[in-house]
Amino acid sequence: MVGAGTDHTKQALSGGPAIILVRPQLAVNIGMCARAMANFGLSDLRLVSPREGWPRTGAYRKGAYAAAAGATHLLEGAKLYDSVAEAIADLNFVYATTARGRGQMKPVHTPATALADTAKRFAAGEKHGVLFGPERTGLDNDDVALADAILTFPVNPAYASLNLAQAVLLVGYEWFRSAHGDVVPYELEERSPPATREMTMAFFDFLEEELDKRGFFRPLTKKPVMSRNLRNMFHRMGLTQQDVRTLWGMVVRLVEGPRRDPKKVWRRKAPNEDAGG
Amino acid sequence: MVGAGTDHTKQALSGGPAIILVRPQLAVNIGMCARAMANFGLSDLRLVSPREGWPRTGAYRKGAYAAAAGATHLLEGAKLYDSVAEAIADLNFVYATTARGRGQMKPVHTPATALADTAKRFAAGEKHGVLFGPERTGLDNDDVALADAILTFPVNPAYASLNLAQAVLLVGYEWFRSAHGDVVPYELEERSPPATREMTMAFFDFLEEELDKRGFFRPLTKKPVMSRNLRNMFHRMGLTQQDVRTLWGMVVRLVEGPRRDPKKVWRRKAPNEDAGG
Repeated sequence: MVGAGTDHTKQALSGGPAIILVRPQLAVNIGMCARAMANFGLSDLRLVSPREGWPRTGAYRKGAYAAAAGATHLLEGAKLYDSVAEAIADLNFVYATTARGRGQMKPVHTPATALADTAKRFAAGEKHGVLFGPERTGLDNDDVALADAILTFPVNPAYASLNLAQAVLLVGYEWFRSAHGDVVPYELEERSPPATREMTMAFFDFLEEELDKRGFFRPLTKKPVMSRNLRNMFHRMGLTQQDVRTLWGMVVRLVEGPRRDPKKVWRRKAPNEDAGG
Repeated sequence: MVGAGTDHTKQALSGGPAIILVRPQLAVNIGMCARAMANFGLSDLRLVSPREGWPRTGAYRKGAYAAAAGATHLLEGAKLYDSVAEAIADLNFVYATTARGRGQMKPVHTPATALADTAKRFAAGEKHGVLFGPERTGLDNDDVALADAILTFPVNPAYASLNLAQAVLLVGYEWFRSAHGDVVPYELEERSPPATREMTMAFFDFLEEELDKRGFFRPLTKKPVMSRNLRNMFHRMGLTQQDVRTLWGMVVRLVEGPRRDPKKVWRRKAPNEDAGG
């Protein structure tokens, strides 16, 4: 749904913590994790004893590649290990994702705080990793014991079951926000510059003059407060210069009726030729 | 994978912005969106002209319910509309999710800022909604025109394709963080209280005395700096009272060799009977 924004001319980001899938069960989930990693510029995928082996030919591999939706470079580059200990041997700091306390007296962090710290320490040369357990059971206590800290997601306690790829997605999202900024992936459109006060005041004066002529402000004693409310409404729009020209043109049409020679009407009234409306 | 933490005694959260799926194509995606909503306490699901109709019997409905993984109450309660205009008629503020600029001069927000604002205004009684487009194409420009603002995800520009349920997940995640806090869904374990300075100093003194006896500090002129480094290492552990007792017992064992009468050894050395190790 949000795919049309992919810009293939941009260089893919890489780096970030290793995503370590411990005994993953389903190929399709490995593929979806790869896709989530690519979305947020993560590139280090590690698999510990995937249930059905890796890499494979046939339907298993095909399922993973289809779910990866183009992030196949991550599947191609995935490293395979027999144990968690081997998978994390080169890392400086490791998080274990769990959905509940594990009685292990480890510090517990949410993704927002954990990945902010990881981004800072990654920039200083440290290598971090995040362990994710099998779909059905999660990490066992021996896996958790190998980690430095626990990572838990802030979720509805009555419905805490996140799927594997969604957990990876949230870790990727917070990594991206800390490492690359909470910014949209495209250049914002060039907007018309904000209107100057002189322009908006001129428009308000013009509008009120036309309203006054038509007896809008009644009783007249209320005019100051009615005028102030009206001006505040327009101020809330955060008017651009183009907006003011559009509104001006609109009021002109409302008071003058059907236009015969648009150019001429416009020239007489508007403060600028580059007319909107 | 993180399912074992679901606490069915907790009341399900509800509220938050309406999640409006515009012309969704696949039943399984509707189900996964429902699951993501339940994870983060969202309860208002709206469907605009789902491609294959809604609700339905047969495989379509079955796919949605299976993917919802228990969040079937959201599917049961989903409201069906023929147009986006009808689906948002009762709302005060509407976001349109897009992956790129749309030339519509609308303000563009990321989920973190947008949902923080929504949470604040929801608490003040406003009703907000978020539009999500069809999987393949996203929202069309007429849909976007109906919204007050654009919501775009901070993603890797080279790989910006988020799937529908993942986009809903990130909106839910940021809603939860703003409305309910960035907190883990379980009580943190009761830890042993932090050690007092008196306890840690007593341990350091004991350790250094034993090391001194064995000629660890050589050359002696380096002892002050070696001692300081050692103490700093232990300080970095953020020792609890239990940790200090454990370390003390460990050093006792290292210097005394195999224990014969543990109780007696412990009584002679440790500052507290509730021994660790």
